[in-house]
Amino acid sequence: MEPFDAVDVIRTKRDGLVLSDAQIDWVIDAYTRGVVAHEQMSALAMAIWLNGMERPEIARWTQAMIASGERMDFSSLSKPTADKHSTGGVGDKITLPLAPLVAVFDVAVPQLSGRGLGHTGGTLDKLESIPGWRADLSNAEMLAQLEDLGAVICAAGAGLAPADKRLYALRDTTGTVESIPLIASSIMSKKIAEGTGSLVLDVKVGSGAFMKTLDDARELARTMVDLGTDAGVRTSALLTDMSTPLGLTAGNALEVRESVEVLAGGGPQDVVDLTVALAEEMLRLAGRPDADPRAALADGRAMDVWRRMIAAQGGDPDAPLPTARHTDVVTADADGVLDSLDAYAVGIAAWRLGAGRAKQGDPVQAGAGVELHAKPGEAVRAGQPLLTLHSDDEARFARAREALDGAVGIEPAAEGADASGASAGTGSIVLESMS
Amino acid sequence: MEPFDAVDVIRTKRDGLVLSDAQIDWVIDAYTRGVVAHEQMSALAMAIWLNGMERPEIARWTQAMIASGERMDFSSLSKPTADKHSTGGVGDKITLPLAPLVAVFDVAVPQLSGRGLGHTGGTLDKLESIPGWRADLSNAEMLAQLEDLGAVICAAGAGLAPADKRLYALRDTTGTVESIPLIASSIMSKKIAEGTGSLVLDVKVGSGAFMKTLDDARELARTMVDLGTDAGVRTSALLTDMSTPLGLTAGNALEVRESVEVLAGGGPQDVVDLTVALAEEMLRLAGRPDADPRAALADGRAMDVWRRMIAAQGGDPDAPLPTARHTDVVTADADGVLDSLDAYAVGIAAWRLGAGRAKQGDPVQAGAGVELHAKPGEAVRAGQPLLTLHSDDEARFARAREALDGAVGIEPAAEGADASGASAGTGSIVLESMS
Repeated sequence: MEPFDAVDVIRTKRDGLVLSDAQIDWVIDAYTRGVVAHEQMSALAMAIWLNGMERPEIARWTQAMIASGERMDFSSLSKPTADKHSTGGVGDKITLPLAPLVAVFDVAVPQLSGRGLGHTGGTLDKLESIPGWRADLSNAEMLAQLEDLGAVICAAGAGLAPADKRLYALRDTTGTVESIPLIASSIMSKKIAEGTGSLVLDVKVGSGAFMKTLDDARELARTMVDLGTDAGVRTSALLTDMSTPLGLTAGNALEVRESVEVLAGGGPQDVVDLTVALAEEMLRLAGRPDADPRAALADGRAMDVWRRMIAAQGGDPDAPLPTARHTDVVTADADGVLDSLDAYAVGIAAWRLGAGRAKQGDPVQAGAGVELHAKPGEAVRAGQPLLTLHSDDEARFARAREALDGAVGIEPAAEGADASGASAGTGSIVLESMS
Repeated sequence: MEPFDAVDVIRTKRDGLVLSDAQIDWVIDAYTRGVVAHEQMSALAMAIWLNGMERPEIARWTQAMIASGERMDFSSLSKPTADKHSTGGVGDKITLPLAPLVAVFDVAVPQLSGRGLGHTGGTLDKLESIPGWRADLSNAEMLAQLEDLGAVICAAGAGLAPADKRLYALRDTTGTVESIPLIASSIMSKKIAEGTGSLVLDVKVGSGAFMKTLDDARELARTMVDLGTDAGVRTSALLTDMSTPLGLTAGNALEVRESVEVLAGGGPQDVVDLTVALAEEMLRLAGRPDADPRAALADGRAMDVWRRMIAAQGGDPDAPLPTARHTDVVTADADGVLDSLDAYAVGIAAWRLGAGRAKQGDPVQAGAGVELHAKPGEAVRAGQPLLTLHSDDEARFARAREALDGAVGIEPAAEGADASGASAGTGSIVLESMS
């Protein structure tokens, strides 16, 4: 005999009331056991989407999802652990240079990552474009690699927060993704169960992010920072710009190439700046406030860890990366200053070109994606290449161009102004920080 | 390739926007085909519950549910058709005397009915307590009986509004029942598809009904009357009291017995009054404004039709009705005036005694239920029997008594007042009418 009835729990939230701890514990556990059906959980998720949850409800919901599975333990390591989580953006390859960079300073970085769904790419999909690299490690392999190299990027095991896995897949098909209580509890249940000592959240704001406004991003960040802190994880957040893609690439192998450029001391300014800002924050939380990550990019120490990390997981860091069979160039249709290049549209275009998947289990094209030749603030001339589309399948170019319709804004250069010296690269990618 | 994505349709309603005709047509059809999954429809139903639907959306939703199945056609009959639908209440056996009563006046009454779920009883469950009676008729049998006798009470065929059947079962398990748009479209899709020429809605108000307040009942009635009228069905509504059970019985055979009393010219005043009021309204809509149904109860004409109707469907109108194996008497615990006898509590008690079912397909006990010995407004004395509980299973009495806890209110008789002449039977059961 179950202690609650699913319909009563659904009605409680539907009617705008606060779920009790016992209701939350039961509904998460019963959903994991299959006693609460998908259609009941989706009705509850929609009620949460529309009526919200109070902070103590979100905390209890998060704890219940953690309790649905196993918890990892990094206390046997000889060094502190630090993790980063991004709420997801277009061209967000930061995990790739960041994990080895932080590991340079004797901090263990266990990046348990996922595959992409929808318009934002997945870290594992990107790394799998490297010949030989494998995402699946046992817990023992992961611990050994963390002790030895300090950096692991691998697939999260199925045992962490299984309730969240069920719920995440359900939310994706039922229009209940963009809810602050549901996003915050989903992210934090996995990160707390993972057992990291400190955590920096990269909360994206703008068209290419779940949170379109700074206010929403602040609320999400505040919620997650509090959840982490209350669970004993040193947690802080950076709110960062996602109105235009990060760097100059969106797509799997394209983003690996750009990440390697950053690790070689080059790469686009915004990617370098965000990598360094997140590294500094992780190192501060992990007790390394004097570390200088920018220097470790410049002098090759981060690249050394990267190469060892890729090789340790079967990858060949020197192998040529896959390229797409076909390309298609989008040019500027006027002289002026590139005013906007919409992140969401570029994400959808990359997805349609084959970089992402429509449903779980679909294959992705390693070489597909979008390459940018200009960033907002830069002067452009009519006919100049703005974007190169990459795909193994020429038929996809038309649908990708449709996604980009209206995504590129070019303003006439102001009279007498020197457009070439416009605001390119001068805005800060980090909008706010919160701890 | 489907023209819409379920998630986009869900998001539209979630975000408080109006669904387009094409979205509604698609989502109902795709749900019927199984392309839209239960968990998607339940998320949409919850969004409708919380954000509502505008009148044109409800109309289109209703039309789409009608279009999901077949429509019946009574135009070959030599007489007009009139139907009644009750939104459901405790002790509501009105269909049983009403159908033969209206048929007396050369009007065809095709009462396609359902089985009970939850605390309100089902008309078919009640009639099935008559030995030999069968609910399932072919369309040809139904038409022949309507032409011959004028009255049929039988099971609705599976072909009418199959989308509604799926959705109704889903709403029951997902906390999305009590929504005016969803209730109105569910009822009216079936009634319009059934093809009746006129329809009187008995919209219940009070603790034993879905609509607890007169305002909600008015909105539901207005919505349904407009839907019917717009679809070419002469439709009106009576708003009637459901704060206390109708008549003196709740339970299958118990209610048949009481219905036969009414057909014999006796029976409780409230049951007689409501039967006559609904008959007058049906006869008015069907073009028989001068008919006198009260006379047809008194002189046995309605009873004649009843006996022929039961016999035509295999039942023996003279067979003794089943009785429960055990009874348990609930007595008054004080002297005074019976102030309240809560309909919902009596409904739950009858259900727990075995008169109803917890899930579709469960058996029901023909003899189980609650018999009332007093109605609100009547004087009672401590120790006097108030209720008799009937069940084949003595173990059920304790749970039924639990449901009745707090349901009986007895007020001390005012000093000097003559309690014996209190308000028993003087209030009108019909609160308002609407057309």
